[in-house]
Amino acid sequence: MMTTKLIKSMLVAGCLAAALPLRMHANEGMWLYNDPPRQVLKSAYQFEPSAAWLEHLQKSSVRFNSGGSGSFVSADGLIISNHHVGADSLQKFGDAEHNYLRDGFHAKTQAEEKRCLDLELNVLMSIEDVTERVNAAVKEGMDPEAAFKARRSVMAEIEKESLDKTGLRSDVVTLYQGGRYHLYRYKKYTDVRLVFAPEQQVAFFGGDPDNFEYPRFNLDICLFRAYENGQPAKVEHYLKWSTAGVSENELVFVSGHPGSTSRLLTVADLEYQRDYALPMRMQYLHRLEVLLTAYSARSEENGRRARDLLFGVQNSRKARDGRLSGLQDPQLMAEKAASEAKLRQSAASQPELKESLEAWDKIDQAKKVIQANAKEYTLIESAQGYHSTLFTIARQITRSLAERGKPNGERLREYRDSNRESLELALFSEEPLYDDLEQLLLGNSLAWLAEQLGWDHPIVKKSLAGKSPRARAAELVKGTHLKEVGARKALYAGDAAVLAAAKDPMIELVQAIDTEARAVRKIMEAQDEVKRQAYAKIGKVKFAVEKTSTYPDATFTLRLAFGTVKGYTEDGNAVPYQTTLAGLYQRADSHQGRPPFDLPQRWIDRKGQLDLATPFNFVSTADIIGGNSGSPVVNRQGEFVGIIFDGNIQSLVLDYIYTEEVARAVSVNSQAILESLRKVYAADDVANELAGQPMHL
Amino acid sequence: MMTTKLIKSMLVAGCLAAALPLRMHANEGMWLYNDPPRQVLKSAYQFEPSAAWLEHLQKSSVRFNSGGSGSFVSADGLIISNHHVGADSLQKFGDAEHNYLRDGFHAKTQAEEKRCLDLELNVLMSIEDVTERVNAAVKEGMDPEAAFKARRSVMAEIEKESLDKTGLRSDVVTLYQGGRYHLYRYKKYTDVRLVFAPEQQVAFFGGDPDNFEYPRFNLDICLFRAYENGQPAKVEHYLKWSTAGVSENELVFVSGHPGSTSRLLTVADLEYQRDYALPMRMQYLHRLEVLLTAYSARSEENGRRARDLLFGVQNSRKARDGRLSGLQDPQLMAEKAASEAKLRQSAASQPELKESLEAWDKIDQAKKVIQANAKEYTLIESAQGYHSTLFTIARQITRSLAERGKPNGERLREYRDSNRESLELALFSEEPLYDDLEQLLLGNSLAWLAEQLGWDHPIVKKSLAGKSPRARAAELVKGTHLKEVGARKALYAGDAAVLAAAKDPMIELVQAIDTEARAVRKIMEAQDEVKRQAYAKIGKVKFAVEKTSTYPDATFTLRLAFGTVKGYTEDGNAVPYQTTLAGLYQRADSHQGRPPFDLPQRWIDRKGQLDLATPFNFVSTADIIGGNSGSPVVNRQGEFVGIIFDGNIQSLVLDYIYTEEVARAVSVNSQAILESLRKVYAADDVANELAGQPMHL
Repeated sequence: MMTTKLIKSMLVAGCLAAALPLRMHANEGMWLYNDPPRQVLKSAYQFEPSAAWLEHLQKSSVRFNSGGSGSFVSADGLIISNHHVGADSLQKFGDAEHNYLRDGFHAKTQAEEKRCLDLELNVLMSIEDVTERVNAAVKEGMDPEAAFKARRSVMAEIEKESLDKTGLRSDVVTLYQGGRYHLYRYKKYTDVRLVFAPEQQVAFFGGDPDNFEYPRFNLDICLFRAYENGQPAKVEHYLKWSTAGVSENELVFVSGHPGSTSRLLTVADLEYQRDYALPMRMQYLHRLEVLLTAYSARSEENGRRARDLLFGVQNSRKARDGRLSGLQDPQLMAEKAASEAKLRQSAASQPELKESLEAWDKIDQAKKVIQANAKEYTLIESAQGYHSTLFTIARQITRSLAERGKPNGERLREYRDSNRESLELALFSEEPLYDDLEQLLLGNSLAWLAEQLGWDHPIVKKSLAGKSPRARAAELVKGTHLKEVGARKALYAGDAAVLAAAKDPMIELVQAIDTEARAVRKIMEAQDEVKRQAYAKIGKVKFAVEKTSTYPDATFTLRLAFGTVKGYTEDGNAVPYQTTLAGLYQRADSHQGRPPFDLPQRWIDRKGQLDLATPFNFVSTADIIGGNSGSPVVNRQGEFVGIIFDGNIQSLVLDYIYTEEVARAVSVNSQAILESLRKVYAADDVANELAGQPMHL
Repeated sequence: MMTTKLIKSMLVAGCLAAALPLRMHANEGMWLYNDPPRQVLKSAYQFEPSAAWLEHLQKSSVRFNSGGSGSFVSADGLIISNHHVGADSLQKFGDAEHNYLRDGFHAKTQAEEKRCLDLELNVLMSIEDVTERVNAAVKEGMDPEAAFKARRSVMAEIEKESLDKTGLRSDVVTLYQGGRYHLYRYKKYTDVRLVFAPEQQVAFFGGDPDNFEYPRFNLDICLFRAYENGQPAKVEHYLKWSTAGVSENELVFVSGHPGSTSRLLTVADLEYQRDYALPMRMQYLHRLEVLLTAYSARSEENGRRARDLLFGVQNSRKARDGRLSGLQDPQLMAEKAASEAKLRQSAASQPELKESLEAWDKIDQAKKVIQANAKEYTLIESAQGYHSTLFTIARQITRSLAERGKPNGERLREYRDSNRESLELALFSEEPLYDDLEQLLLGNSLAWLAEQLGWDHPIVKKSLAGKSPRARAAELVKGTHLKEVGARKALYAGDAAVLAAAKDPMIELVQAIDTEARAVRKIMEAQDEVKRQAYAKIGKVKFAVEKTSTYPDATFTLRLAFGTVKGYTEDGNAVPYQTTLAGLYQRADSHQGRPPFDLPQRWIDRKGQLDLATPFNFVSTADIIGGNSGSPVVNRQGEFVGIIFDGNIQSLVLDYIYTEEVARAVSVNSQAILESLRKVYAADDVANELAGQPMHL
């Protein structure tokens, strides 16, 4: 599953990263809407999208800030995304009596539509290039720290101005690792209600074994409705539903929010990923997966509490394992090294590009500093050592109060004015928190912190306060009052004195380590600036040498991809481009219906009513990555023909390099969605609305 | 489960480790049979075991070299151990059509008793103190490497002499980390046949969640029969079965083979365990658990193939997590530090002990060298980076040939003459090997090797030969001929020329890294010697200061423990000393019979025939640790009243410190065994034999 649970924190923490590819495959690219691949579409497919076609698709596309994509599919604000994107909301609704993630949900009337606790959706309204203004703020000769500050400040200023002027969420996005800066303006929806979800059993049929595999048989969908002023949102742009689905070799488009790619990274940066960043992350993921699996096995209620988190961990683990395997393949690295050598050679041979050669050395130097600080940064500032929602809340409150007094442009980026509403939505979420799970995670991560930094590290000593990690976690979780949203609001509305008077142990922990956390962040941000400048130079070389239109690495912003519906060959066997509903039952049978190959009772009971020849899942060569989950797949007419929910195992390497031989995006066919809504779920109201009729009454 | 899967490799690799406890609890101790706790038994329990009582228990006790304990329970060589000790054999019997581990086994006639593929059992016949001879070989002023060689040589010589003289397996055992050397002579059984095993579902009821927990409801038993010359072995010493079980506060004894404890370690060595050895091991275990769980979920047959291995990994992970948590508790470490300070003070104040003070510094220095080499040692010489049975076989063949030409005393210890038969039993085992699983494990561990040592490390380069870890693993596993026992025998019978001519890629890999592997082993062995000498000095201080009889750390050799049958208090709640069969059904019901709380169909069907009041599991304060699995629990009369199968979660800290407040050994009651054999399994033949009748015909 191409979920992007971690995208928000990645954006916040400022991902560091880049050189452009030397050759381009036909269907490669996660293109900017303001720089679409007109040339290649025309030459390869004789397709010329009009401005209206592009605008319609852009404004029908929806970003799920919990990590994922979606699209409007009715005039009354109905939105379709993946079940595993909706899982975050489904998890938060639940309690010991209600397991919506497992059992599914169907609002039979508008009144039954269930409001999500903290879900924010964004629709991209406009893009403006602000590169010159951002770069102008950074003066010649500034040291990296000053340059970073100047850049952060002007970005916050641009965002604030835009917010004040338009009322729209306004984000300055760094593209090409620092080559371009674009201002993205979004219409925001924070009243989002759940309309329909199938059982996780069929949405994620085949579980972890089938995840990132193909052929597949998943009904990975979830339907929401955007509301405005308490009423279903009336939207101008929504996708017309195709009842014809797709045919082999058809040209299709994917409009969504790929989270992050690393295609433009230098070899030095790729080695850093291979040798350091990914293995460390994998170690923590393995540890978490074992911890949560053991916890979940203890009781059904434990299993429910940890369900979405465990899914996210397993999904991340499998995705990262695929990426790491890519980097561990000497052939891929050799290809990258050859491209880079060629580029450097070109730069060396052209006088006006010669000065760019230092960029590679700068990145190499920055890498060394980053590597030396990565452990502390990850554990302390990114809070891997304090894995607890209550800790996150405590930090957000503490830092909100501290940053509030500073000018907008000087604050830590996530506390800038233009992000306030989004921050508060998360901070005041009524998401249920469970003492046992919070303690388990915090105790585990405090032990991890100590194991990684050593027991004599001052931060470890402050964090443990002379206790064992488990005892300390118990004390903190039991002692804090932040479980109550009212307590959070009171502190957030207060000041330093109010905070001190609260004597909340979790807040005190945040404060105790804040100086060190900020210090290591500052070091990393300065290196981020060094790399931005260096990657901007490498970008210039690339443009000069390749003179071709291209696209930036993914940044969880809206992109347009395209490709054809197409099978592939694996170990000498042809893998057909699509599966059918009949295949779902066959696969369940071939595993004697044992989990995770078991079917919901409803699907067993209503098998006879289904047209089993209905196409179910299909693959295409469109260029996608985690974050694209829930992206609509549309045809030349801009009609909804399917929804992205995964990539095959060969696609995981797309993080570093595009290939269309065997890498494929996996989607649910629009026909299977209608068929199952009508015949399995008796959800004709929803199906009719998708088919163009007014919403249910 | 207190299994000891890794004990053989620990013994082979030579565990390094110790200082004696300053205070002794009433029921503490894993006592030597030649130095039993007469004083404390007499004073606390008015019990004076006779020489005959001790000899009978000793010779009724059986060591399972696959890792575990057991005992003779009939004159016809019937042996009882745990299901999870027998699991290794049950796994190896199986194929796609037979899953004995899951389904259980019952030989209804002698002819049906099923011979184990490579199981060796040992019965301790005598103990001889050879400390003086071993120490005499090490001359004053020898450097550690020379001292190690001299010691290894004299130990091999003693063993060879004893083997030649008695025909018995002869091992010189290092006790008190080098304070004493004893020669253990064993009668060996290599024709061992399976008689009865229940389903793993009830043997390991509650699975990982209930593992190391109490109250418990496990029928963790497995019955074997020793054969000699193709006939059931006639044994003089076997335990009489008690049909009365145990009563609260009763004195009981445990005779078994605790694998390894670290109670005598200095604080420096404990910190090494806490900061380095255990975390590194845990990382690899987490990685393996995730890998094997994912593999097992893909199909039922995968699950069967990996079943025993995955169980072992999960069990190790939970056990080590408990130990690590103990070391991460500042209170435990403070207690250890205080004891040590007191001991050092005593040494400093007594002129004749003063020179012993340097021992602590020596251990500290050795620790630094060990830490600097531990990664390479673990990955290369202990072969964590080459996790594959085929690799192990390739190394055993390669090294057997190389060591054969050397004098017995100069060989790597596992290739000494007195170990030849045991080595060949393992090497020529018909254990089924699966290409896919071998590739998965080897690919994973080669990636781990590269991640840990770095991609430019010469060993990594040699090991990967320019390929990705997965591609290299596939090439090695597909290319080797060592899957066939015949091929192994041919190479083993050959010489260097035969080996070279075979061009077996796995053998070539072993050879490519052998120089470096031996080099790092040599470094570690020299440090081992430094520590032996230092710990011997600390031992002297302890004897001088405490003047009390004590026991050495566990070494997977026969020990006598004792304690009382006794409940405890947990979070303010009384935990009774025993459970009943009724409790098994209640626990299954409270989890709606969901795995791992599901019962075998037989148990559901025959519930009505069982006396549900029959005591099932019980706890005692006896001092045990991993390796004690399957140990008989006997009463004052030396009768079999139960069988050890686990410790509670609070007992995991027993690795470092004994406590009888809440730490408990968990056993199956002898009554429940008879009741279930008769009523659930209709295995009256087995039950009758246990009750003293002749074996089934």
